[in-house]
This record gives sequence, C-alpha cells and structure tokens, in this order.
Amino acid sequence: MTQIFDNPADFADEALDGFVAANRAYVARVDGGVVRSTEVPAGQVALVVGGGSGHYPAFAGLVGPGLATASACGNMFASPAAGQIYRVAKEANAGGGVLLSYGNYAGDVLHFGQAQLRLNAEGIETRTVTVTDDIASAPRDQIGKRRGIAGDLTVFKIAGAAAEAGLSLDEVERLATKANDRTRSLGVAFDGCTLPGAGEPLFHVPPGQMSLGLGIHGEPGISEHPMPTASELAELLVSRLLSDTPDHCGSRVVAIVNGLGTVKYDELFLLFGKIEKLLVNAGLTVVEPECGELVTSLDMSGLSLTLLWLDEELEHHWAAPADSPAYRKGNLAPRARRQLSGPEDAVSGDVEETTAAAADLGRLAAAVLAQVRDVVVEHEEELGNLDAIAGDGDHGIGMRRGVEAAADAAAQAAASGASVGRVLEAAGEAWSERAGGTSGALWGSGVIASGLALGNRETYTNEDAIAAVTAFVGAITGLGKAEPGDKTMVDALLPFREAFLRELDGGTTLTQALTVAAPAAKAAAAKTAELRPLKGRARPLAEKSLGHPDPGAVSFGLIVERIAAFIHSGLAGPHFTEPGLAHSEPAYAAGKGATT
Amino acid sequence: MTQIFDNPADFADEALDGFVAANRAYVARVDGGVVRSTEVPAGQVALVVGGGSGHYPAFAGLVGPGLATASACGNMFASPAAGQIYRVAKEANAGGGVLLSYGNYAGDVLHFGQAQLRLNAEGIETRTVTVTDDIASAPRDQIGKRRGIAGDLTVFKIAGAAAEAGLSLDEVERLATKANDRTRSLGVAFDGCTLPGAGEPLFHVPPGQMSLGLGIHGEPGISEHPMPTASELAELLVSRLLSDTPDHCGSRVVAIVNGLGTVKYDELFLLFGKIEKLLVNAGLTVVEPECGELVTSLDMSGLSLTLLWLDEELEHHWAAPADSPAYRKGNLAPRARRQLSGPEDAVSGDVEETTAAAADLGRLAAAVLAQVRDVVVEHEEELGNLDAIAGDGDHGIGMRRGVEAAADAAAQAAASGASVGRVLEAAGEAWSERAGGTSGALWGSGVIASGLALGNRETYTNEDAIAAVTAFVGAITGLGKAEPGDKTMVDALLPFREAFLRELDGGTTLTQALTVAAPAAKAAAAKTAELRPLKGRARPLAEKSLGHPDPGAVSFGLIVERIAAFIHSGLAGPHFTEPGLAHSEPAYAAGKGATT
Repeated sequence: MTQIFDNPADFADEALDGFVAANRAYVARVDGGVVRSTEVPAGQVALVVGGGSGHYPAFAGLVGPGLATASACGNMFASPAAGQIYRVAKEANAGGGVLLSYGNYAGDVLHFGQAQLRLNAEGIETRTVTVTDDIASAPRDQIGKRRGIAGDLTVFKIAGAAAEAGLSLDEVERLATKANDRTRSLGVAFDGCTLPGAGEPLFHVPPGQMSLGLGIHGEPGISEHPMPTASELAELLVSRLLSDTPDHCGSRVVAIVNGLGTVKYDELFLLFGKIEKLLVNAGLTVVEPECGELVTSLDMSGLSLTLLWLDEELEHHWAAPADSPAYRKGNLAPRARRQLSGPEDAVSGDVEETTAAAADLGRLAAAVLAQVRDVVVEHEEELGNLDAIAGDGDHGIGMRRGVEAAADAAAQAAASGASVGRVLEAAGEAWSERAGGTSGALWGSGVIASGLALGNRETYTNEDAIAAVTAFVGAITGLGKAEPGDKTMVDALLPFREAFLRELDGGTTLTQALTVAAPAAKAAAAKTAELRPLKGRARPLAEKSLGHPDPGAVSFGLIVERIAAFIHSGLAGPHFTEPGLAHSEPAYAAGKGATT
Repeated sequence: MTQIFDNPADFADEALDGFVAANRAYVARVDGGVVRSTEVPAGQVALVVGGGSGHYPAFAGLVGPGLATASACGNMFASPAAGQIYRVAKEANAGGGVLLSYGNYAGDVLHFGQAQLRLNAEGIETRTVTVTDDIASAPRDQIGKRRGIAGDLTVFKIAGAAAEAGLSLDEVERLATKANDRTRSLGVAFDGCTLPGAGEPLFHVPPGQMSLGLGIHGEPGISEHPMPTASELAELLVSRLLSDTPDHCGSRVVAIVNGLGTVKYDELFLLFGKIEKLLVNAGLTVVEPECGELVTSLDMSGLSLTLLWLDEELEHHWAAPADSPAYRKGNLAPRARRQLSGPEDAVSGDVEETTAAAADLGRLAAAVLAQVRDVVVEHEEELGNLDAIAGDGDHGIGMRRGVEAAADAAAQAAASGASVGRVLEAAGEAWSERAGGTSGALWGSGVIASGLALGNRETYTNEDAIAAVTAFVGAITGLGKAEPGDKTMVDALLPFREAFLRELDGGTTLTQALTVAAPAAKAAAAKTAELRPLKGRARPLAEKSLGHPDPGAVSFGLIVERIAAFIHSGLAGPHFTEPGLAHSEPAYAAGKGATT
C-alpha cells in the first residue's frame, strides 16, 4: 500500500525532488530527470538510462561515476516523454556521444526512440541498447521481444564501467549489447503493488499461490504454482534460467537475487544461499553476486533471479568501481561538483525571425488544435470505455491530457508570433510529455514532425501541406512500427493519407481533400472491429477485442473529421475573428490548388 | 508476509548463511554471528554490534571497515545469547579492547552484559554503549529507559569511524556515548510484520490509522492518528523531535528517514523532501543525510525519522568513509583477507585434569539438571498459561528449551569426565543460547556462575555449596537488576538463599538446608501474586498481573522443590546406580556439616 503523499498526482515529481535532496552529492535535478552533480570527464560516453518511476533504485538511484550519467524519470510506471529524455541526454552529453539504455517496453521504446532521432539530428551521436532479460516474456527465438527487469543492472553496470574506462561509443554499445545478450532473469510474484492514491493493488495473485514470470507491472506470467518452499523456489528459478543459458558461455556467472518490494532482506538472503549452492552444483562459479532491492516495483511482493554469464572483459567491467546513490562498489577518486543550469534555464532555444506567412499558419495550427482538443474532450468517456474492453481504459484520459497540453502550448506559441513550425513543435512536445504512454508518444511525434516539415517559410503551398501530412504519418508508422492490419491507429491513418494525396493529386483544393479523406479515416477506423490486435495495448486480450474497433483508430477518425469540418466551415469561430488573421488562409494560396 | 523459507525454525540461521554467501568480500560466519572477512589492524578497537535478526541491514549488514567489526546475530527479534556474543567478540578483538553497542532492550542488555562480564574477566577490556534514541519509549527525564531504533546507525557509524581512526577504547566509548546523547528518533507504523511461519502479523494497526511511536516489535505507541498527508506527517515528526532537542546542540544535523519494510523508496524520498524543508525552515543545516531502509522490521509498514545533532568531531566521524555490505561511503583502501577459524574450530578450550571429586560432583550436577528438566517439562503448560495472563506466554516453552539443552550438555560433559565446573559452564551456556530471552540469560548465567564457584577441586565442603548458591543468586540479581518486590524471580530467589544459609549456619546438613529452603522459595513465589510488576516481562500489563504469581518466581520454586526432593531421596535413580558413583555424595563430607 503506497500511502505517503499529499496529492497522488504529484507523487512521482515530489519523490524525485526528495531523492535529489537526499543525494545532492550524486545528482542534480534537470527538466525530465536527474544528471550527475559531479564532473563528467570531457569526451566520456554518456550513459542515459530511464523509465517509469516506482522501480527505485532503477533508474535514478543508479546515476553516478562508473554507472549511469543521467536518468530520465517518467511518471509512475510510465515512460518518460521523448522531450524529457532528449533534454536529460543533452545535459548528460560530455562530447563522447550518448548510449540510451532501458527496459524493453513499448512506451519506453517509442519515447527513447524519438529522443534518439532528435539527438542524432542535432549531431549528438546516440545509440540504444534495450534490456531484454526476462525469459518469461517471450520464447527464446523471439529474444528481442523480451521485457527488461533486473537485468537492467547488469547492462547498466557494464556500460557505465566501459564509459568510465574511457571507451568509445562503439565499444560501450558493443559491451552493453554483449551484457544484455548474456543476461537472463526470471521473476515470481506473490501479490501486486498499489499505485499512489489507488484503493486496490494493480493486480492480485491468489493467496497461497505464486505466479511465475509475472511482469513487474502485472503483465501476465507463464504459470501459477502453489507457494513453494525456499528450496523448491531456488530449484525452479535456477533450472529455468540454466535451460535458457546463452550460447558459447563459460562457467563464471554473476547472480542477482532481487526483491521487488515487500519480500525482505532475510528472505532474499535465505533464497540466495540455496541458489548459490545449486549454481555451484551445476559447475558454475558465482562472481561478485548481489542480493537486495535493485529493481523494485513499489510494494509488490515478489522477487527475481538474474544471471549474467561473464567473459574476461565483462568480468572486468562488472568488478570495476561504481559510486551512485544506491549502488556503490570499490574506490573511485572523488569528483568535483559540476556547474549545472537549473531546470528553469534548461529550455532556451535560439531566436527565430518569423515570416508573416509562418506566423499566420501558426495561428491556424493553434486554432485547429483547439478544435482537436474539443472533439477529444467530447469523446473522452466513449474512448475510455472502448479501450477498457481489451485494454487498460486510459485512452480517453491520455488523449485528453495530451491534447489539452498541446492546445495550450500551441496557443501560447502562436500568441507570441511563433512560426507554424515552432507552434507545432511546442504542441507536440507538450502532448508527448503530458499524455505519457504510447498514444502520447505517437501523437506528439507526429505533430512535431509536421511542424518540422512546415518550418518558417516565406510562402506555403499545397506541397507543404502534403509534406506535413506525410511527415505526420511517417513519424507515427516509423516510431510505432505497426503494420496495416495490426489493429492500431495506423489502420485509419494510411487510408486517410491515401485519400488525401489522391484528391490533391487530382487537382482538388485542400479543403476538398480533407473533406474526402476524413470520412475514409472514420470508415477505416470502424472496420478495425473485424481485426485481431497484433500489436499495441490490446494484444494480451485479443479475443475480447474482436467486434470492437481500435480506440486509437477511432480517435484519429474523430479528430480528422473535426478538422475537416472546421476548415470547411471557412475557418469560422472566435480564433479567427481577431484582426490580422483574415489573410491566414491565403498563405496556402500560391500552391497547386487554391484553397476555398 | 514473510514466506520464503523451508522450515521456519531455521529461518534466521539460513538467512545468515545466505547473507554471508552473498557478501564474502565483507564478512565471514563465526559461531553466533559474523565478523569482518578482512584484516582488522592490530590494536584497533573492535566494535561489536548485534541484536535479534529481522532488522537488516542492522546488524550484520553494517560489518566492515569504518563501521562494525562484528555482529552477534540472534534469532528473529530475539537477542543473541551471551555465549554467542562472547565468542563473536573474541573473534573480533584485535587487541584494542571491545565496544559492545546495541539497542536498549531487556534481553539484549542481559545477554550483552553477561558477555561483557566474561570478556572483562578474561582480560579483554570491554565497554558498552546502548542506543536509546526512541523518544516515544520513555519521557525525557528517563532517557536511559528509551529503546534503540534507527539511531543504531548514527551511534555505530560514529563509533566505527572512531575505531577506524585508531582512537583508544576510552575515546571510542566517549564518542559513541556522545552520538547516542545527541540522537533522537521517532517512528510511525501503519501495520505490523509477520514472523516466518506465522499466519498473522505480530500486531495490526487499524486500516486508515497510524500509530505514533509504536516500537519495531509492536511495543505500544504514544497515540493513534488518522492517516495523515505526507506534509502533516513530516510536520509531526519534525516538531516532536525538535521539541526533544538535546541540550547545548548546534544547528548542523544528520537527518535519516528510515523505512521499516514495506513503505517504499519513492514514499521515503517524498517524505524526506518535505522534512528537509522543515528542518531548513527551523534554522538547521542538514548534513550528509540518509534516506532508505537502514534498520528494518521484516515487512512492517512504517518509518522513522532520526536526527543526530553534530559537533565538529561527530561530523568528522559521520563523514568518514565506511565500507560494509549495506552501508558504503567514501573511499577506503582495500583490505587483505583475514584468516579466520571456521565455526567448527571456534570452540576448543584447554585441556583440564579433572579431580575425582570434581568429576563425581559433575555427574551429580548432570543428574540434578535432568531432574530440573523433568519438572520444567511437567509444568511447561502451566507456566505458559501463567505467563500469558500478563506477558507473552512463552515462559514455559522458553524454560523447557533452555533446560533441555542444559541437561543434554551437562550429561555429555559429565559422561566425558569433566569437572563440575565444566559441566555447569556447558549447561549454562546451552541454557542461555537455546532458551533466548530474559529467563534464558538469567538461568544460564546463574548456572555458569555456580560452575565457576565449584571449579575443579580435590575436595568439596559445605563452604563450596554456599559459594555456589551465592554465585548463582549473585549472577541473577547482578544481571537482572531487579529489586525485591519488583515481582520477578528474585522474590523467590532471595528467601531461598536466606533460608539455605541460615540452616547451614545453624549446623544442619546440606540436605536438611535444602529441605527447609525449598518450601520457603515456593511460599515466596506464591506471595508474588500480591505484587505489581515493576520490572520485567509483565510491566506493561501491571493491572492484569495482580492476583497471579510471577511465572519466573513460580518456576524457580518448582525447581528447588524438585532438587530438594531428589537430594533427600538419597540420590536414588538411574544416574547414581552406575559403578563409581557411590562416593559422589561424600565429596561434600569434609565440610562444616556432614551430608546424609
């Protein structure tokens, strides 16, 4: 039961503030996470880790010399937003490039992936190693689909030591990848954890039962067992992990017995003692093991065993010193304090000379986003109910949170005379950060991509509109990696783009193209009811989902329908009654097709 | 819920084995606890900490350079036995003397006190600093009665750093005392913890309530409150601690937010952030704080705040490096591995040339202890029920466990021809270690003391019998510090000694003296029903205890009654039918009064 808080909504943020207050010798708060408060040697690879909050010491507790350079910290059990990761990585960068490393969860993959694109686009060389140690989460021939659990520690430790040793980004990436390839974990749960403010645990395991392979956020396990003795549990964990031994591995292993929250130290030690004996009996040598709470899940009752099969270079980096709030090993020379810009200075950006056309289009974009907000708010409950059939029911609230923030950010940017590029970038970032989750990452990145496509030009033509729509769709398909027929938003998005481009190619106006493309998107969204989910939120409950359309496709259809109607209405409404906005539509006039 | 074990009875032992297996670079197992596995510089003061298990990282997790030298580890929530503490301290001693430090609980005070007597008697200079930080456990004018909770960490850290700096035993003791004088803690609990194998928590706090000052083993708190917000809780803890600020303290404090088990890291950090602000607002400077799980109580839901008011020398030692399994700070040069005798070699002892008289009396002692065992087993249930009226009901089982072990040890020693001194020493140690708790410590130390009084002589007289009884009584009154009228075993013990000495002074036989003294003890035990408990197990429930005799006094009365009857019967029974035992009674013949 998580119960120490004022307002549950502020929990993750206030906890992070308190963490920094208790660990100022190690970390400083930056916008979106924490970064070392001590000097990072120039040219050292920055290891940026992160993920949802609630897993302490993962991730912020592992920031310090010899381990991570910084951590992006999301809300409770929710990925940090791409913009947060991007800003944290920029603060962490010491000129040697950035390695992003995190557990393999859809939301994290999206947001970290988006941040990586931005960092690389800005010339900060950035690579990614996702942690995939949980053998319960996918079969051996789909190892890339496995989740990351306590194996975070082995991968981060190896990568952090390699960075500390001054190795290149190529080498740090290679070693982290090797550590991940040679790390296996398996967890068990006896009961669920409670999010702050929730009256009930996220999930339950029946009393007297143990769920094998249950994920740290309640993702389904492999099997249920009657509560075993400690010896039986040790036997079960060891035999399952050894049967998944990586290829070409020697006999020296790191063993980590990790408590998830309420299985306490004496229990973990007792189990460790039995596990070590079994490993020794199996001919293995246990090297510098760990036993304690290293990757937790609030007050979840459960534990996991992790094995890392060492070779000479991995053992060298595993044994190397590290000095972070929650993980300390050996001796490192003390580091000087680093001068950091506070969170207030973190966002600056260079000054832009906005063209009249780009500013006008910026105001139009803000007006459109206000419409999008309205339609999402009107349908929030309906979208939530639809999502609850086979998902976690948060699509409505997530979309609303994201679009409200996006509309606000766009209105503010437009009011200050920013270009359409800047307006949409601000809107997309706000969407991504406030909404959290997968849909927030997708919409945020789509909106940012269309902003980058529109930029700050002297004139805008239909070609620019096509580029914006193409960029929007490209960002979403590129990031989400869903295929047509996977029962996601993409199943409405692609028919929309197709109809829109076909109409414009045929010489019609923008307004007309939207008027044709929007119903195509709505119809395609409705047809997703016939599909089985193959990707995304509804996958675990595929059967229940049959007969109901995908919520992400439905919300997309509703949004483009509203945009089309708004444009078709001749841009009527309070946003366009202000002086100076009368000529905003002609900004598109010089293109292929004249607007209405 | 504590649930990882094979046999709950082996839990503490197997957990300690696993702890050592996971931390071989730091600790080695010795009989009764753990000691550093690295070299201790010759002449360095040995800091020996300890207490019941279930409080990890207290106590074994704090063994390492710059912190404790060794830890004596008891059963779950039960003091280690005096013999264990003694042996652990002997292993830890590096020639600089020993400082014993532990939380101020009756059982620990008894057992550590007894160990201290033995160490000092052997020429190992030994001092004690008990930790008394819990302001909820006694008013300010009775500060010596306060319990020790998370203040263990500040006292141990200061003492360990002082020892590491090479200071003398006087100085280490002075600094530890000062640290304790300047440390204050206050805890809250939201729910109880479960001992391994128990179906229910030791205690409950009603849902939605918080108990202020509830002890870490469920000792009664000060008051109950509705569950507060984090800000209210921070305010409550800070204001109560500041109102108990030690005299003549400056403005620099260490603040420790300590989780007891299932209040997790993000919650602790959130609270720490609020507490730090309040301390700063109160004009204090927070120096190198800690926030985490430092002194736990299995899976108890609760937390505590500790403040240590620093001065220059305390701050120096607080900031000094330390390197233990659970607490690491700064840099210490790596230490060489130490050569330790394994547990199997720990007990050796020099070879004794036993006299015939001493061996005969040893066999008599073993026979007497077999009788004592029988009478305790016969009355186990009755003693347990009596204890349950105003205590925890374990007097019967505790006495049985102790006396069974004592009788076995005595039989074994006597069979190998040991002197009465050795037989009783072995019996007393076994009693103390197996019984645990207060009565085990008292009986164990009484039996050992009478053994030391009888030793290994050529002849035994009534003077020796008087010396043995006097030593027995002296050990118990010295250790337990109970006064006549406190409603303890002492209320039967003193009338017994008085009658026994009076009879022998009057020229009667030993048998006759016993025959008179035993009924006196029984009568005195019965009269304790009229007393109110002022000391010992029944104090918290004084009212309930009125009208019922003290279980410790009753068991003593039963035991001396049985011994008197056994002796009076002319030493009949299988133990004395063996050849060579016929002359065992005449061992006392050369004294003042001839025996029957």
